Amino acid sequence: MIDILDRVRNTALHAKIVSAEEAAAFIKPNMNVGTSGFTPAGYPKAVPLALAKRMEKEPFQINLWTGASVGKELDGALAKVHGIKRRMPYQTNKDLRAQINNGEVQYCDLHLSESAQLARYGYMGGKIDVAIVEACAITEDGNIIPTTSMGNAASYVQTADVVIVEVNTSQPIELEGMHDVYVPLDPPHRLPIPVVKPNDHIGTPYIPCGLDKIKYIVACDIKDDVRPFGEIDENSHKISQYIIDLFHKEVKEGRLPANLLPIQSGVGNVANAVISGFVDSDFTDLSVYTEVIQDGMFDLIDAGKLSFASGTSLSPSPTGLDRFYNNIKKYRKKLLLRPQEIANSPEVARRIGIIAMNTAIECDIYGNVNSTHIMGTKMMNGIGGSGDFARNAYLTCFFTASTAKDGLISSIVPMCSHIDHTEHDVDIIVTEQGLADLRGLSPRERARVIIENCAHPDYKPMLMDYFERADKATKHAHTPHLLKEALSWHERFVETGTMKQ
Amino acid sequence: MIDILDRVRNTALHAKIVSAEEAAAFIKPNMNVGTSGFTPAGYPKAVPLALAKRMEKEPFQINLWTGASVGKELDGALAKVHGIKRRMPYQTNKDLRAQINNGEVQYCDLHLSESAQLARYGYMGGKIDVAIVEACAITEDGNIIPTTSMGNAASYVQTADVVIVEVNTSQPIELEGMHDVYVPLDPPHRLPIPVVKPNDHIGTPYIPCGLDKIKYIVACDIKDDVRPFGEIDENSHKISQYIIDLFHKEVKEGRLPANLLPIQSGVGNVANAVISGFVDSDFTDLSVYTEVIQDGMFDLIDAGKLSFASGTSLSPSPTGLDRFYNNIKKYRKKLLLRPQEIANSPEVARRIGIIAMNTAIECDIYGNVNSTHIMGTKMMNGIGGSGDFARNAYLTCFFTASTAKDGLISSIVPMCSHIDHTEHDVDIIVTEQGLADLRGLSPRERARVIIENCAHPDYKPMLMDYFERADKATKHAHTPHLLKEALSWHERFVETGTMKQ
Repeated sequence: MIDILDRVRNTALHAKIVSAEEAAAFIKPNMNVGTSGFTPAGYPKAVPLALAKRMEKEPFQINLWTGASVGKELDGALAKVHGIKRRMPYQTNKDLRAQINNGEVQYCDLHLSESAQLARYGYMGGKIDVAIVEACAITEDGNIIPTTSMGNAASYVQTADVVIVEVNTSQPIELEGMHDVYVPLDPPHRLPIPVVKPNDHIGTPYIPCGLDKIKYIVACDIKDDVRPFGEIDENSHKISQYIIDLFHKEVKEGRLPANLLPIQSGVGNVANAVISGFVDSDFTDLSVYTEVIQDGMFDLIDAGKLSFASGTSLSPSPTGLDRFYNNIKKYRKKLLLRPQEIANSPEVARRIGIIAMNTAIECDIYGNVNSTHIMGTKMMNGIGGSGDFARNAYLTCFFTASTAKDGLISSIVPMCSHIDHTEHDVDIIVTEQGLADLRGLSPRERARVIIENCAHPDYKPMLMDYFERADKATKHAHTPHLLKEALSWHERFVETGTMKQ
Repeated sequence: MIDILDRVRNTALHAKIVSAEEAAAFIKPNMNVGTSGFTPAGYPKAVPLALAKRMEKEPFQINLWTGASVGKELDGALAKVHGIKRRMPYQTNKDLRAQINNGEVQYCDLHLSESAQLARYGYMGGKIDVAIVEACAITEDGNIIPTTSMGNAASYVQTADVVIVEVNTSQPIELEGMHDVYVPLDPPHRLPIPVVKPNDHIGTPYIPCGLDKIKYIVACDIKDDVRPFGEIDENSHKISQYIIDLFHKEVKEGRLPANLLPIQSGVGNVANAVISGFVDSDFTDLSVYTEVIQDGMFDLIDAGKLSFASGTSLSPSPTGLDRFYNNIKKYRKKLLLRPQEIANSPEVARRIGIIAMNTAIECDIYGNVNSTHIMGTKMMNGIGGSGDFARNAYLTCFFTASTAKDGLISSIVPMCSHIDHTEHDVDIIVTEQGLADLRGLSPRERARVIIENCAHPDYKPMLMDYFERADKATKHAHTPHLLKEALSWHERFVETGTMKQ
C-alpha cells in the first residue's frame, strides 16, 4: 500500500488533502474545467466520479477541456449524468458521442496542437476556472509530477486560478523524470521551440504550479482505463507491408536516410500493425515523434530497433501497461512525454521531418481525406492530431481498409462526405489493395492511381465509371465531378444500407 | 541607359553574357525548369519569351516550377504555344487556367511554403534541370541580387545544376539589401528558423550561387507586368470596417496588444481595402508578415503607421510601382523580401502569431472554405499561401462578398463544392453583411451565426431552411446535412444560371 503522504513531499500541503467529494464540491455550474489526460491515460478519476455523483442528485453542467480522449471515469461518468455542456478538443466516449450527435453537447473539434493556446488566448469562452490534474507526486515546491500523459495539463494549470491535484498511487513513482514540460510564451513573445531531435529535453520534469495555487489534493488509486487491441488482421498486415516497402524504395532512391526520419503513428489497430511491421523489418536505429506511445513501441525497444520515442501519452493495452510497469526502468530510458502543444507542434513536425501515418474514415478519388464524420453528418471521434502531422510531415500517409461494414461501404468514394485533410496535404494513401503515391500529380492523375491501386474490386468499376463520366461531362476540368452524383454513394448507403448499386 | 556590364560585377562573367535566344536554346523538352517570380514580380522575361518563340516553330513542352503566379512573358507566352506540361505551385494566367481546365496541363496546386522543399526532396518528378532567375546584379563572387520578389529562387538555384541569370536593368539597383535569403537545411538536419519578429534578418542579401554554376547571363529591360487595382468598392469598404471593429474589440478585451500582431493580408482589391482601412484607423506601430506587399503598405508607411513589413514579393499596381521606385530609399527602410518558405513558414506564422486575412470563393454554413474551385470542378488560381497562414495564425479571417455574379451566386452555401480550409482552421468569416466569430462554437452554432451575420438577405431564408431541415432530418447530428441537397445550389447554378430557387 503506497501512502499518499509520501507522494506529497511538502508536509504543509498535507492539510490540503481532502476527499474527492469535498474537492468536487468546489465545481460550480457552467465552470470551465481543464483536466489532464490524453487518450485514456493520465486523466483525473476520483474527482470526476464524485462530481458525477453530485450531478446525479443535483443536475448541472460544466464545460470540459482535456488533452484528448479520456477514460470512462471522466467523459463516461459525466456524460451519463448529462453533466457536459461544452467539450473540447477530442473524445472517443460512446455516451458522449451520442450526446454530440443529438445536439445536447456542443463539441468543438480542434487540432490538438492548438487546443492549449486557444484556451490561453481566451478563444474558448472565458478562462479556465479550475484545473484538475492527475499526479504521481507533488514536489517540495508544489510542482506537479505528471503520470502517463502530459496533454494540456501544464497550460491548464498555468491558466487556472485554482488547481485540484489527484495523486494517483497506482501510477509508479518511476514515471518521475519521463516528462519534459515546456509551455511556449504567447505571441508576440514566443521564441523558437528548441527541439531538433526526438530526445531533446527543453523544459522541466514537472508542471510548474506552486504551493498557493493548489487548493485541494485528492488520493486516487484507480488505474488508467486503457483498452485492449484487436489481433492484427490480414488487412492491417497488408497495409503495413505496403508501407514498409515504400520506405525501402524511398531509402533506395535517396529520399529518406537509412534509419528513416522520426515516425508518427496514429492510434489503433492498423497503427499498431504498422509499428509491428517495423519490428519484423531490417530497419534499425528508428526514432519516433508522435502523440501516443502504444505496445508496438515496447516491441521496437525489445528488438533493439528504437533509438528514442517522444510522445504526449503512454496508452498501451492492459497487458502492455503491465509490461511497461514491470520493465519501467528499461523502457523509460527510451521514452519521453511532452505537452501536446510540443508533441504535435507544426513547427517541430516540419523541422525534424516526421513520417506521418494516420487512419482515414474515407478518402476520395482526388486525395481528400475524411477523418471525423460518418456519412457526412455524425461525429465519430475528432480530427485529433492528424492535421498537425499531415500538413507538416516530410511524408504524409493515410491508411484505411478499402471497405467497411463487411463490404457495404467503400472507403474510397467519389467525394468525401466531410473533409478534414485536403488534397494539398496527402502524399500517400494505402489500403489492403495497394498504395497510391500522389506526390506531384494533378487531381485527374491522382484519381486513376487511387482507383487502380486502392479501391476494392467491388467498387473499382463504379469509381472508374464515375470518374470517366465526370471527366467527360466537365470537359476534363481540373477536378471532374458530377455534382448530382458526388455524394450519391453516401445517400445510397443511408437509404439502402449499402453503397453498392 | 543602364549598362548590364556594370551590373555583372565580376568581369570574368562578362563572357557568359549571351542573347535570350542562345540561353533559351539550352532548354530541352521535358526539362524541369525552376524560375524566380512571385505574383507578377521578379520573374524572368527575356528567356521565356525567346523560349516561347522557339516552341512556336519547334513545339515541345517543359515542366514549369515558379514561386507563385508570374507575368504574361512567362506563363502567358508559354501557355500560348502550349509549352507547359506540368505546372506548380500557383498560377493566375487566363490561357494557362484554360489549359488546366481542359486536361492539357497537369497542375499541382501546393501550399506555397512547401513548394521549395518538395522540389528539394525530389517529390515533383526529378530534380530541377535549369533555374532561370531575374537579378538586379551579380556580385563579384557570382552571387545573385534578386529583384522584386524572392519566391523559390534561392532553392531552385541551390538545386539546379545550371543557372541562367536575367539581369533586368529596369529594376533599380537600390533593391540591393532589401532581401534576406535563408534556405533551411532538409531533415534531419534542419534547425529552428530564427525569425521572431518581422524585421529579423537571418540570411544573406543575395542568393548564393557561385561563378561556375552560372551558365548564361541575359540582359533584359522589360518591367514587371503588374496589374492595376479596382476602385475600393462599397462591399470591400464594409468588410474592412467590420474587421477594424473586430480588432478594436479584441484589443479592448485583452486578446490582442494595442498595436495588434503581425498582419498577413492576401492579394487583391478586398485585401487592399483592408490595409487602407488601417490607414484611416487609429492603430499605430503596426507590423506586417505577409506574402505580397502592395500599394496599401506604402500608404501605411506614409501615414507613419507601419513599423515594418516583411514579404516575399513587391507587387503593387503600375502607379504603386512608380511610387515605390521614386521613393525607394524611403520605403526600403521598412520593407524586406524573404524566400516564400520563410515568408509563409507555418513555424514563423504560429510563433509570431500573425493575423491572417484571406479571400474565400465560398464558405459553407459550418465554416469550411473554398479558395480554389469554381462550382467544384474548375480551378480558378490555387490555394497559394492561404493554407500556410490560415492553419497557423493567431486569428484567421476569411472574407468574401456575400454574393457573386450580380447576386446569382451566394458565397455562403450549404456545403462548399470544394474544401481548401476546413472548419478547424477558420475563426472569422466576413462579408459586406457582417462578421461571424466562430471561435469555440460547435458546427450547429456556427451555422446560425454565419447565416444570420454573413449571408445575403436573398439567400438567408433558403440557408436557414436548409439548416433547419437538415438539423431535423439528422436528429441534431454534429454537422447536419441533407446529402441529396448539399450541393444542389451549385447544380442549380450550373443548370439554370442562378442559385436562386
